[in-house]
Amino acid sequence: MKKLQLLATAAALATAATAATAATASTVVNQAITEAEVLAAQRAWCQALVDISTIGERNGQAAAKALAERVIDSAYGYQMGAVLFKPTLTVAPQTFRTTRAGALAYFVGGDSAFPKDTGFALKGWTKCEVDNAAVFIAGDSATTMGKVNTTGKDGKVTTVDKTWKFVKDDAGKLRIVVHHSSLPFSG
Amino acid sequence: MKKLQLLATAAALATAATAATAATASTVVNQAITEAEVLAAQRAWCQALVDISTIGERNGQAAAKALAERVIDSAYGYQMGAVLFKPTLTVAPQTFRTTRAGALAYFVGGDSAFPKDTGFALKGWTKCEVDNAAVFIAGDSATTMGKVNTTGKDGKVTTVDKTWKFVKDDAGKLRIVVHHSSLPFSG
Amino acid sequence: MKKLQLLATAAALATAATAATAATASTVVNQAITEAEVLAAQRAWCQALVDISTIGERNGQAAAKALAERVIDSAYGYQMGAVLFKPTLTVAPQTFRTTRAGALAYFVGGDSAFPKDTGFALKGWTKCEVDNAAVFIAGDSATTMGKVNTTGKDGKVTTVDKTWKFVKDDAGKLRIVVHHSSLPFSG
Amino acid sequence: MKKLQLLATAAALATAATAATAATASTVVNQAITEAEVLAAQRAWCQALVDISTIGERNGQAAAKALAERVIDSAYGYQMGAVLFKPTLTVAPQTFRTTRAGALAYFVGGDSAFPKDTGFALKGWTKCEVDNAAVFIAGDSATTMGKVNTTGKDGKVTTVDKTWKFVKDDAGKLRIVVHHSSLPFSG
Repeated sequence: MKKLQLLATAAALATAATAATAATASTVVNQAITEAEVLAAQRAWCQALVDISTIGERNGQAAAKALAERVIDSAYGYQMGAVLFKPTLTVAPQTFRTTRAGALAYFVGGDSAFPKDTGFALKGWTKCEVDNAAVFIAGDSATTMGKVNTTGKDGKVTTVDKTWKFVKDDAGKLRIVVHHSSLPFSG
Repeated sequence: MKKLQLLATAAALATAATAATAATASTVVNQAITEAEVLAAQRAWCQALVDISTIGERNGQAAAKALAERVIDSAYGYQMGAVLFKPTLTVAPQTFRTTRAGALAYFVGGDSAFPKDTGFALKGWTKCEVDNAAVFIAGDSATTMGKVNTTGKDGKVTTVDKTWKFVKDDAGKLRIVVHHSSLPFSG
Repeated sequence: MKKLQLLATAAALATAATAATAATASTVVNQAITEAEVLAAQRAWCQALVDISTIGERNGQAAAKALAERVIDSAYGYQMGAVLFKPTLTVAPQTFRTTRAGALAYFVGGDSAFPKDTGFALKGWTKCEVDNAAVFIAGDSATTMGKVNTTGKDGKVTTVDKTWKFVKDDAGKLRIVVHHSSLPFSG
Repeated sequence: MKKLQLLATAAALATAATAATAATASTVVNQAITEAEVLAAQRAWCQALVDISTIGERNGQAAAKALAERVIDSAYGYQMGAVLFKPTLTVAPQTFRTTRAGALAYFVGGDSAFPKDTGFALKGWTKCEVDNAAVFIAGDSATTMGKVNTTGKDGKVTTVDKTWKFVKDDAGKLRIVVHHSSLPFSG
């Protein structure tokens, strides 16, 4: 995908070059995060939530856990040392899940070290949509804030307030390094 | 561990300086954000909250508003185009305060465009303390996540889950560009 | 210009929104450096060189110096603490011009603290073109490397190997923070 | 001054720790580049140059080439898409070595695609020292500019003007992404 992006850039340059000045570059590498990449990463998170729910329903917790591990390892940045993750439904003293184990327990439960976790991703979600209030791209990171609406099997929609910060890893993939999710204030 | 790291770095430099090699630089500019700067910016936010409360009690809403404006203009990054701000007590459709006006209304109320805002900073706060779960410094930005405990006049402590992202402006000052605050999940 | 960029982004989003998903943002701020901004900053440097030469010929050194000061203050990053500037024709022990005074002396001479400087920008340049070998955009900075060809009054073209690193300041303007220029190796 | 700054920071932290407030973080990740890391990366480059020379003298070009490949793969950022590399002694039209093959040919020669390269690292270098004019750390990158002095078998010292930009990869290792080297202007 990174390679495709480079080719696309080269094509754009070729067009610019037709417009013709000496100021064309034979090689262009652009690591800046684009809005399209941010929106795609958000959709991928939503899809992963539904996928884990679906596989959990069909194949059980172990299968859901295996998928959740793959999702966490590919979509979050725990290998960087920590992720600043405040899931929607956690409580003190385990509110914050800065470790991979804490994130995994939150999503699929079954970890005695996190006894209150029953598996958020196992709640039978059938749909997940992002409604951004704002996207802020700061060159080497991008942060989004907005509502995320998830639909359960009974059709009931749960809305949360969600902040994500993404960075691009060496392979060109966006990873979540900050994730704060909370139920709306009820007034 | 961080402290040890800094001391180790200082020690390494001291050693390098003693060795007095040619590899010394006559000019060093370092724009990296330090943990000390982050903790100071957090304390400054807490102090500003108490200050606005105090001046509001003593001198009224107009005085509190004037101070809040100075705080927002110096501590947040609204001049960059937007701040991703989800205050603790806002509700849809005005949950997110990406504009300076929305932040000001939240802190001191009195803006008919935000009719539900009564002024969070006018609640008589006497104390504010930060209890970080994690600090992540990524070179040109720093993000924190943890509990913030604020004490009211009656001694009651309110705890919120809070995420802040800071960047350093051209003048070297940290500014809040992301701020997500939420009441703890009540189980 | 920053504002125009935001409006353009909003327009692009509107188009994307027509394509239609829920994942649209009402506010988008994008501080990433674009290739177009880099090429424009390079052209502006070239134009400034020719302008200083022209005004020097017409109105003398003082006028050229006044313009050079405006150019340095708007196009370089000396206010950040230092610029890593190795001009084409400087010699030890004043090879590197990390201060504003050193850059100004190089461009227009007339500073007894830099006795060998005769004013590179006063050499009667009539044309300046950039021929990039590579552009590398890393989110919050962009670096270019290539040939720069400058033409004198006699039509003679001087080619140098040039590296520039640009960063975007708080006002959204690209500034040169690294500038290494050298005559080609003569074999 | 830098040293004082680090010590001051360490002292401030020590004080903060003594005060033992709630504002301590249980997890701190700091990806900022330090001056010590920059100086170490420069020394490593110098050492690698001498090592390649030494192994070339002892074991021949193939052994030197194998080592040069390891050095390029670990110390440069070619896997990011390109490195902006202007070696000291290259000439047009192959002045810039934005590819790994071009860098390898420059260091050890023997590549018919780069017929003028005789192997800069095979010139019998016995010593290499860096004399920085300036180091600029911008959070997620660091740039240095200064003199590098290399000593040949005959004791003759060659001095070049050199700019390096380093970034930290996902594994925490500094990599050269920009390298402009040039012989001093001879006046």
